[in-house]
Amino acid sequence: MTDLEEKRLSSRQTFKGRLLDIWVDDVELPDGSTSTREFTKHPGAVVMIPVLPNGKMLLIRQYRYPMGEVEIELPAGKIDPGEEQEETVQRELIEETGYRAGKISCVAEIHPCVGYSDERMWIYLAQELEEEVQNTDVDEFIELAPTEFEECLRLVRTGEIKDVKTIIGLFWAEKLMGGIWNPPD
Amino acid sequence: MTDLEEKRLSSRQTFKGRLLDIWVDDVELPDGSTSTREFTKHPGAVVMIPVLPNGKMLLIRQYRYPMGEVEIELPAGKIDPGEEQEETVQRELIEETGYRAGKISCVAEIHPCVGYSDERMWIYLAQELEEEVQNTDVDEFIELAPTEFEECLRLVRTGEIKDVKTIIGLFWAEKLMGGIWNPPD
Repeated sequence: MTDLEEKRLSSRQTFKGRLLDIWVDDVELPDGSTSTREFTKHPGAVVMIPVLPNGKMLLIRQYRYPMGEVEIELPAGKIDPGEEQEETVQRELIEETGYRAGKISCVAEIHPCVGYSDERMWIYLAQELEEEVQNTDVDEFIELAPTEFEECLRLVRTGEIKDVKTIIGLFWAEKLMGGIWNPPD
Repeated sequence: MTDLEEKRLSSRQTFKGRLLDIWVDDVELPDGSTSTREFTKHPGAVVMIPVLPNGKMLLIRQYRYPMGEVEIELPAGKIDPGEEQEETVQRELIEETGYRAGKISCVAEIHPCVGYSDERMWIYLAQELEEEVQNTDVDEFIELAPTEFEECLRLVRTGEIKDVKTIIGLFWAEKLMGGIWNPPD
């Protein structure tokens, strides 16, 4: 097998904003030549598949400025410094939906943007939901959209759901709910 | 229904690199307050699900510098200025894998990174593959990994495949190949 690894030669931060943290690295390629790699550093995020007591999936609707449209999504959020993933799951689920989960389990790690971001996302199945109070960030506007599972799959098939974490969470949920896959060990 | 839209008040480019094109916009939120949105502009990309004549899926292995690891992926690539998506599909398939597709059809549009990129990806089923010559970019090192379809799904389940476009392409292929879904109209 060829060694595909690229080695860092130097690294410089070129932009630090409220959200984005852009770095440009010089790298040595497998054949000894050099190139540059540009990417944003990201703290990582969690995605929740929240199943309501009535069996519906608790989707949300949110305007996504870069896309210029409302996306139908699973709830998700960035991991705060020093926070355990399970804490982020509960914090973001309450903030975005107003529900707390009695039971959570991690089903997958996914990489949304391998070309220009080091973001990792962990998908959690969130069950035994109990209602508390929604408490979104000051610049975050979210509508709840509880949806029958079959309708969720239809929205994927027809392209009304386009967000990747949401599509993967729903496909994964189908495998888990059908007993075709078990959560990984 | 609440109006969730955010309106652009001003827009400034803060970084322009070889790949990233970072903008910071001031926006008016649905309640009339203001905030900023940071994101990268992206030309869009295509993703191919290449099915070899022997039925295997033509996956690739590529070192992804931001992730610091080799990812197992479906072939994909950015749309060049003025290029039709179908041209990008054929160009990138030949460049990355050395195969030309006799038949391609778009099965889905996905949004990999709605929080900080306007990137859209279109997933194409690529069939009737014929061998030509692989011709990767000068700073791109790719290994071909033809893989039985059941093994692809196992690699998703076990987390050896983590790249989102690849996971979605494989889940979608399962639906299409099983006759559960038809390509969208």
